[in-house]
Amino acid sequence: VRISVLGVGLIGGSIGLASREWLEDAEVVGFGRSAERLDRARELGAIDRGTTDLSEAVAGADVCFACGPVGVLPGLVEQALAGAPADCVVTDVGSTKRSIVEATADERFVGGHPIAGAETAGVEHARADLFQGATWYLTPAERSSGLLYERLHRVIVAFGARPVAIDAETHDRLLAAVSHLPHVLANVLVAQAATMLGEEGEALPRVGPSFRDATRVAGANTDMWTDIYVANAEAIAEEVEETIGRLQTVVNALRAGDAAALSGWNDGAREDRRRLLEADLAGGPVHELVVPVPNRPGIVAQLALALGRAGVNIVDMALAPAPDMSSGAITLWIAGDDAAERARAVVDQLDFGDRQPS
Amino acid sequence: VRISVLGVGLIGGSIGLASREWLEDAEVVGFGRSAERLDRARELGAIDRGTTDLSEAVAGADVCFACGPVGVLPGLVEQALAGAPADCVVTDVGSTKRSIVEATADERFVGGHPIAGAETAGVEHARADLFQGATWYLTPAERSSGLLYERLHRVIVAFGARPVAIDAETHDRLLAAVSHLPHVLANVLVAQAATMLGEEGEALPRVGPSFRDATRVAGANTDMWTDIYVANAEAIAEEVEETIGRLQTVVNALRAGDAAALSGWNDGAREDRRRLLEADLAGGPVHELVVPVPNRPGIVAQLALALGRAGVNIVDMALAPAPDMSSGAITLWIAGDDAAERARAVVDQLDFGDRQPS
Repeated sequence: VRISVLGVGLIGGSIGLASREWLEDAEVVGFGRSAERLDRARELGAIDRGTTDLSEAVAGADVCFACGPVGVLPGLVEQALAGAPADCVVTDVGSTKRSIVEATADERFVGGHPIAGAETAGVEHARADLFQGATWYLTPAERSSGLLYERLHRVIVAFGARPVAIDAETHDRLLAAVSHLPHVLANVLVAQAATMLGEEGEALPRVGPSFRDATRVAGANTDMWTDIYVANAEAIAEEVEETIGRLQTVVNALRAGDAAALSGWNDGAREDRRRLLEADLAGGPVHELVVPVPNRPGIVAQLALALGRAGVNIVDMALAPAPDMSSGAITLWIAGDDAAERARAVVDQLDFGDRQPS
Repeated sequence: VRISVLGVGLIGGSIGLASREWLEDAEVVGFGRSAERLDRARELGAIDRGTTDLSEAVAGADVCFACGPVGVLPGLVEQALAGAPADCVVTDVGSTKRSIVEATADERFVGGHPIAGAETAGVEHARADLFQGATWYLTPAERSSGLLYERLHRVIVAFGARPVAIDAETHDRLLAAVSHLPHVLANVLVAQAATMLGEEGEALPRVGPSFRDATRVAGANTDMWTDIYVANAEAIAEEVEETIGRLQTVVNALRAGDAAALSGWNDGAREDRRRLLEADLAGGPVHELVVPVPNRPGIVAQLALALGRAGVNIVDMALAPAPDMSSGAITLWIAGDDAAERARAVVDQLDFGDRQPS
């Protein structure tokens, strides 16, 4: 299998290392603008060979990963699609998805976003196991090829990651709420504390662990985050506005001295956090589920999205078209007894419109 | 020295243990409503003896620590002052200070707030070294006795803590900004994420480390935090309102797609956090500084507050009244070359009004 990695930094380099470690007969071709950095990536074992010619990098590729700052990804993906073979799946690793998915009509494109490794940049920190256990969002569009989606899914599972299908808009709203908004609040918190402590003269602030934790991500990599803020501006703005509304409610309870409201609000937050964090610890025995489906575009996306919404972790999947190509079956492997039951219920309720009686 | 500890939980128990470990000839008397819990505290070595009679607990005490939830402290301090000897210093450990300081006119009272150990409650988790290296705010009022303040300061230094003098109102605003506000934002973040994920069906949220860090304190102990929110309501409300204003600015930059403004804001946050956290790492060789002062109420508070504002860490202090009691000297030990220089500058600029030519 030939893997093309466009941009060989922390993520691209780790994809290269993981491919060479976990995929059978993998050949990894790296693209970059600096021949020197490509050499370094090769020395570190992240790529088999490097090239500064993008067409050469994608020629003959089976899977192409566009890795780079959110701001350059649309151009990179467009060029990759222009040069890649007709049966190559092209994906990206950007942390916002709606704009790139909307801009790309090609059936070979599936948006992606691995939740891994923002702390350190550079191919020097790349690791074959960077994605072990990590969530890897995939945002297939209706037009996305099911066969190519399946191939990408398999590769990501081989990396040790957990692929989660989600539509691009929900992804961006979700990330706005659980990642971008915390960054905004961290930035605001430190700026506000710094201003206040500035007013109080040169006093050393004795900040406690709660402040350190709450502001750990303040002022994260500016190039990367400016791209994210711009690419996901509307979803983030909406989340921030909702936060403003919630904060105003808190102000009102404080000014009213409403102890009961404050207690209930605090209890609710504890319960919310417990549920949010516990939900992530699902697992258990793996079940196999075979789903007969009509062979038309959009089926894989429809199924994967429905299961993603139901919180089902698809450990692995396989597509098997019938000989006449008019119908087929998707085999899904699901982790956990409860998840498998939920998956069955989801599948039973799905209306494929043109499903044959079986 | 006789130490009275009113309320023997995590903080009170640790004060007892630290007193018995680090103070010479310490006798620790514990007060509580439950004889059983007092027995437990005695078994653990946190107190020498316990009583359910508050007057008995404070009789003959040199230093009295009122330890309990913010809501009960005003009553506890009032009773302690009513029963304690004329030369006993009474302090509390509550995390808001303005209301209790304003309510207490007694010269024997000095408000206090050790920044330590909110994670686990109960005397079972008490440790003699709980305060090692911890900031311990002291909020002397003008009426506070300098001699009694000095005694309390020494005891806290003996515990291994760093006493920092600060006026009660500034303390509450500071804590609102660096502790209470992060708790408010954490609560709002989890509630907002939970609502959004609820709308998206039963989807498992794949929350990242930034969300975990930012919400670590969400839904902290409700009894304790409701007390804090009520006691410091106005300062917290003002900080939250400032946050709302700052968030609105971010929304405007997002909607305008103003990449330059977002970049600058993010860079500023990184710089702010670096400064805030580095400021806490001061240290160095200890210098001695002798300050001649008139012997009148308020001098110690004035000096300690001025040095606190200048970010000077007073490692130890001693008061030496002149034989005729009309004047005296305060000896200060300051950690760090820079801090000692700042302390000298502060002292030179202080106007004691009635200072004698020396």
